[in-house]
Amino acid sequence: MAHLMSTSCSIKISSSYRPCGQPLNQNRTVLPNSFTIKTSKSPFKRLVSKGQRAGRSCLVLATAAPVSKEVSANPRSGSDRSPNDSSKPQRVMVIGGDGYCGWATALHLSNKGYKVAIVDSLVRRLFDHQLGLDSLTPISSIHNRLRCWKAITGKTIELYIGDICDFEILSETFNSFEPDVVVHFGEQRSAPYSMIDRSRAVFTQKNNVIGTLNVLFAIKEFREECHLVKLGTMGEYGTPNIDIEEGYITISHNGRTDTLPYPKQASSFYHLSKVHDSNNIAFTCKAWGIRATDLNQGVVYGVKTDETSMHEQLCNRLDYDGVFGTALNRFCVQAAVGHPLTVYGKGGQTRGYLDIRDTVQCVELAIANPAKPGEFRVFNQFTEQFSVNELAALVTKAGQKLGLDVQTISVPNPRVEAEEHYYNAKHTKLIELGLKPHLLSDSLLDSLLNFAIEFKDRVDTKQIMPSVSWKKIGVKPQTVPAN
Amino acid sequence: MAHLMSTSCSIKISSSYRPCGQPLNQNRTVLPNSFTIKTSKSPFKRLVSKGQRAGRSCLVLATAAPVSKEVSANPRSGSDRSPNDSSKPQRVMVIGGDGYCGWATALHLSNKGYKVAIVDSLVRRLFDHQLGLDSLTPISSIHNRLRCWKAITGKTIELYIGDICDFEILSETFNSFEPDVVVHFGEQRSAPYSMIDRSRAVFTQKNNVIGTLNVLFAIKEFREECHLVKLGTMGEYGTPNIDIEEGYITISHNGRTDTLPYPKQASSFYHLSKVHDSNNIAFTCKAWGIRATDLNQGVVYGVKTDETSMHEQLCNRLDYDGVFGTALNRFCVQAAVGHPLTVYGKGGQTRGYLDIRDTVQCVELAIANPAKPGEFRVFNQFTEQFSVNELAALVTKAGQKLGLDVQTISVPNPRVEAEEHYYNAKHTKLIELGLKPHLLSDSLLDSLLNFAIEFKDRVDTKQIMPSVSWKKIGVKPQTVPAN
Repeated sequence: MAHLMSTSCSIKISSSYRPCGQPLNQNRTVLPNSFTIKTSKSPFKRLVSKGQRAGRSCLVLATAAPVSKEVSANPRSGSDRSPNDSSKPQRVMVIGGDGYCGWATALHLSNKGYKVAIVDSLVRRLFDHQLGLDSLTPISSIHNRLRCWKAITGKTIELYIGDICDFEILSETFNSFEPDVVVHFGEQRSAPYSMIDRSRAVFTQKNNVIGTLNVLFAIKEFREECHLVKLGTMGEYGTPNIDIEEGYITISHNGRTDTLPYPKQASSFYHLSKVHDSNNIAFTCKAWGIRATDLNQGVVYGVKTDETSMHEQLCNRLDYDGVFGTALNRFCVQAAVGHPLTVYGKGGQTRGYLDIRDTVQCVELAIANPAKPGEFRVFNQFTEQFSVNELAALVTKAGQKLGLDVQTISVPNPRVEAEEHYYNAKHTKLIELGLKPHLLSDSLLDSLLNFAIEFKDRVDTKQIMPSVSWKKIGVKPQTVPAN
Repeated sequence: MAHLMSTSCSIKISSSYRPCGQPLNQNRTVLPNSFTIKTSKSPFKRLVSKGQRAGRSCLVLATAAPVSKEVSANPRSGSDRSPNDSSKPQRVMVIGGDGYCGWATALHLSNKGYKVAIVDSLVRRLFDHQLGLDSLTPISSIHNRLRCWKAITGKTIELYIGDICDFEILSETFNSFEPDVVVHFGEQRSAPYSMIDRSRAVFTQKNNVIGTLNVLFAIKEFREECHLVKLGTMGEYGTPNIDIEEGYITISHNGRTDTLPYPKQASSFYHLSKVHDSNNIAFTCKAWGIRATDLNQGVVYGVKTDETSMHEQLCNRLDYDGVFGTALNRFCVQAAVGHPLTVYGKGGQTRGYLDIRDTVQCVELAIANPAKPGEFRVFNQFTEQFSVNELAALVTKAGQKLGLDVQTISVPNPRVEAEEHYYNAKHTKLIELGLKPHLLSDSLLDSLLNFAIEFKDRVDTKQIMPSVSWKKIGVKPQTVPAN
């Protein structure tokens, strides 16, 4: 990892960060001056610090969260154990638990009674430093986040800082935490990032594919009953001219019939890395009896979940920039700061979308209803389909209700993709397991817009426009001086 | 690369190597004491030696090969130029040109009038050292091979020693040789090798996927008109219960129709790496306008081509061991040394096969009839289908004709695969371009068997049995002491 800054980004130091002690309400909670990080034997000991900050204290103001055990409605949930139930709660390792979806999921599962450990190299934060980007929302260090979570809920989330591409680290982590479930978010997750330059393209595929291979080997070797819940993407399918099924399609051909993996047509080196992962995982399910759920997730929007709303130190990141920002989140920020909504090309690009509160719900449902040994199960994880033009119209309407003057412009599409196409993707399996979707209503858009307005002073408008071109990607490392 | 020896292999130093001067016939040719290797600017200069061996001479006995220009029957062949044609011959870079298929192809294309360069890290030879394996046939160093080729034919094949995963090396190679065509054999090509241990699994996917990504970037950046001819494998398709098409399948589903990539079901980390490659290449054809032909090759048998037969220093490798040996070649060696033919499991496993003389012919046809810019073209490259049991029966029959006592045993299948299944794969596109197959007749089997008998003193019978298990692969590096 020696990546430099991308061409269109500049260094920005925000002056609008809220001080640590700013209250969300008036309940006061004292954060402990130490928190538990599970340590393991050398050589991993060098990498997992004990997490104790001697002589240091941090006073924060927080919502008092429910510390008592909660019971999920789902009969197979890991938290569905009566006080007399002697079985232990399921142990869930959340790889990439410091990221956008991973953080919300780790808190949600901890809150639901699962025993959670986060494994994360924190490289996502490094990407921001290198590219001169920043979350709309101020986010705390992972150490402070977990200290705060412990203070508010009494629940401990273990922390392992390390790169899963290093198998020595991953194996120590597995043997230390002994997971029953691995939820794997730990990948470079931006299509534009993977299209910046050759170095990032190679990094993305190497990081994602090798990291996942290592997870598969760790499960086989150390925890063969462990259920792998892997985050894929709806982008693996591309935009075929037929209905998209959930992972498999039954094909009749020349008088014979078989059910085969749904054909994939990924459209960036990032999306391709997810296809590679899916193929590797499917093979190990068949060859080794691994049990796996591949969650082909749509575009996630929103920032608040029940848990991240408990305290500002638990606040999730929100990306609005041209590299990591996704369509709806970016539009809301653009509307908030008076920047025109940037529709790429014709705007007929249609995708599946979901609220981040449904991301955490879907992962919990997958855990509570695990795949069978040897099963490679694919769920399409989204709740509604929208075209980019439809999203722009929704944000415009919601913005006008808030008195904002929202304009829309079409910018040249930096991607290579169909801008008008058929799109109909199935997404019934998670509904059948009990998913109760948060649909993108006016009120939800209002709250997302209000959130963007709340933090609009932190917006760097130079980050908004697309800065990465699918066709102009080259072999030269992309960088710019700060200006 | 720090791989150690595999569990079931032992170190063997053959005592039956033929001396360099042994004639194939009585025509005497003096090899030059220097040969041309194209050098390039620093830092590549450090890696590509000039290839001159001052004060050294090597006298060998050789068939005098045709040095005059030959004319291909194909109207679009690179060699199809009259003496007055001012256009230059096409420049073909053969990546992996020191390997089994690569070496035969490099010589064939050079013989047909193409300007050829070999790019190879020679790591295939290192695998043999590390695993204690050896080719049935004694093979010369790449330097001596090229010196011999020059002496016999007057034709120069340029040589670049280097790893294409190192983009600095690859880019220098591109800018030095300026290929019109890249034929890419430069991958770890053994399924069992990829299933030895975690380290080899990761190496195989990283080496193959990143190497191919680098080739794609090099073409985009330096030689955008260059035609990529990439070796894939029929194993990408697995064994679906419907006919296998050539790369794409038209699917009607819920009243709509689309032609989509044929669903893949690869069954080893090696085969998966080829699927990943295919997906990456298809994307760059669409996004960047790369022109590519993906040759999904069946199992190759045989060792002699017109060119490798010209002199023993040009002899190709022949692998019969449990890691790199493939079914038919291995059976012939087993028959020659009186080892029972080892059928894995029930023996109903059916695959496409082809003679190595057809491999070189197919690559030439793909080059002479290039893909269009932006086209990702897939040819299934094999000529006949056989089950393992059918092959064993053919070898038994041919062996008996030669007076050999050929037995067959079933051994536990080290792979995870269907042992009885439907299999019908299309392979018409290369026939339509003019492929004239060498079918597996009795006479061909006789000559392959006689070849095995000729070298049977070099056989290490301890290498024959399968030594790698799909299910037992683990994270611990596999190694054994020599015994």
